[in-house]
Amino acid sequence: MSQYKEILLTARPDGNPVGPHLFEVVEKDIPTPGEGEFLIKQTHMSMDPAMLGWMSPDEDSYIPPVPLNTRMRASGYGEVVASKHSDFNVGDKVMGMMGWTEYALSNGQGINKLNAQVDGETALAVFGLPGLTATQGLFNIGKPKAGETLIVTGAAGSVGSMVGQLAKADGLRVIGVVGSDEKAEWIVNELGFDGAINYKTDDLKSKLAELTPDGIDVFFENTGGPIQKYIFQRMNVHGRVVVCGMIADYTAEAPSPGPNWIPLIKKRLTVQGFAMPDHLGDAPQLLEKLSPYVMQGHIKYRTHALEGLESAMSALNLFFTGDNKGKLLIKL
Amino acid sequence: MSQYKEILLTARPDGNPVGPHLFEVVEKDIPTPGEGEFLIKQTHMSMDPAMLGWMSPDEDSYIPPVPLNTRMRASGYGEVVASKHSDFNVGDKVMGMMGWTEYALSNGQGINKLNAQVDGETALAVFGLPGLTATQGLFNIGKPKAGETLIVTGAAGSVGSMVGQLAKADGLRVIGVVGSDEKAEWIVNELGFDGAINYKTDDLKSKLAELTPDGIDVFFENTGGPIQKYIFQRMNVHGRVVVCGMIADYTAEAPSPGPNWIPLIKKRLTVQGFAMPDHLGDAPQLLEKLSPYVMQGHIKYRTHALEGLESAMSALNLFFTGDNKGKLLIKL
Repeated sequence: MSQYKEILLTARPDGNPVGPHLFEVVEKDIPTPGEGEFLIKQTHMSMDPAMLGWMSPDEDSYIPPVPLNTRMRASGYGEVVASKHSDFNVGDKVMGMMGWTEYALSNGQGINKLNAQVDGETALAVFGLPGLTATQGLFNIGKPKAGETLIVTGAAGSVGSMVGQLAKADGLRVIGVVGSDEKAEWIVNELGFDGAINYKTDDLKSKLAELTPDGIDVFFENTGGPIQKYIFQRMNVHGRVVVCGMIADYTAEAPSPGPNWIPLIKKRLTVQGFAMPDHLGDAPQLLEKLSPYVMQGHIKYRTHALEGLESAMSALNLFFTGDNKGKLLIKL
Repeated sequence: MSQYKEILLTARPDGNPVGPHLFEVVEKDIPTPGEGEFLIKQTHMSMDPAMLGWMSPDEDSYIPPVPLNTRMRASGYGEVVASKHSDFNVGDKVMGMMGWTEYALSNGQGINKLNAQVDGETALAVFGLPGLTATQGLFNIGKPKAGETLIVTGAAGSVGSMVGQLAKADGLRVIGVVGSDEKAEWIVNELGFDGAINYKTDDLKSKLAELTPDGIDVFFENTGGPIQKYIFQRMNVHGRVVVCGMIADYTAEAPSPGPNWIPLIKKRLTVQGFAMPDHLGDAPQLLEKLSPYVMQGHIKYRTHALEGLESAMSALNLFFTGDNKGKLLIKL
């Protein structure tokens, strides 16, 4: 009988780089679907910053952490290879939460069939969690208006790059914050951003002032970090701050302080955090909103693909170092 | 010809206590109304924390600062004593922005007639800026629901005491943060709050935990200060933070940092600042919302009255020391 690999989370992050010491690779027999079940061979596994949250034991998190010694959580793309389920047939392309595994048995819950023309990379990079997140955060919280200025941190990331392109398509001035000159060039020259700030090398305050002469109306926050307070100070009256991620602080022993709240009053700002588990029921409407932008060619993306299930164990560190170049995924 | 006094702002606050060195008292001839004008003899002048903002030169403020060497801004209550205006007659009781002055000439703009049964103290304490502010912030931003827990800082102040009583009337558990045991007793024993925290003497973290066993759903922030971060940490999922005032930071040289933003994501919080100049057009609807609570006896208040125009010059310090006991006003 043939076997497959999956990876269990066996320890909590301890502030050190994420690596094999937190996981165990196990081999199991490939299961046979029971009545109402089907078997997915996963071909593309999504790696997302949210995984850091899923690994940590904080009871306050919006979805429960992955229990120790169970399969690490992830969304992925694959093909149905065996089925006793009436709605899923062998050969169907599917996307959903399969976890860090080569094969997944499912009863269909949380698994969506995809148009066969959408390949695995596009599925995960555009129509997966990043696309839903960008669409929900930008349109339903950020409420962008043509002529306004938007700034997005983590701008070369899977969410940030979509946020910026969607806002550009809607007629905003868009500035992206990134961590390398290569990313800065990519978002400006390839994605059409109006400007980029390299938070590692630029003088944050003066560069911000130069690139946002009319202030900032929408701040889409994916990272946290020292630039946060400078952006906050440049918010315009009635500005909106969409708080999507704080990667810089997820594993910090002591979270860094946030900006003082006086601008909240003086500028009458709204700062709103969100997390997609609250909005997964809205996925059809979000995809309906997003699809025309994709169809009209407004959304470019690039992927950073690693090979083989085991590569997931160290891949998350790329989010901290910023060395991933585009949507991070694992090809199985 | 008879004379009256008014007070000009002649210098900006410098971090020291506010006092006569920032002002000049001038005497002028009492004017005679021209066509379309009327003369108000002000009897009660409202002192509000917002005045600190009006005195400071920050261009970012929501209304322009008071220009130097002009009359200091304030709302007040008084009686029409001479009129060549068709809508205002001698003997009418009026409320509006008259400034630090014993007499004010008006063309009617921003001046409202009041029911003669509403006396000056009630007008300023309940139906003036504090009442409008409490109503707008609590209902339109805080969106309180019966059974939820609300915490309000500056709870014995003119806005805070109304917020708490309105929320109690709507069936919330209400905790107030104050700066003295006397105020703590007042809000619990007289106003019916469920609990009080003395931020100067209580252990903030443990007292908060004790008084908010089910966490906090609505945080109405009037003060800033060290308790802010502890409250923020106890916010429940989908909690709302209404940012109305930051008195602790208005004159600080370096504003204190705010709380880290991770709870914004984990709890999907909304933090919204507001300022009444945005909502003065809604005053009729706000008063309509507020009036039944007052009529049904849900709103108690107390005033802290000083005598004479000149007492205004040092009165603002009471907001910093917390020594005012109720709605601060000047009787003229």
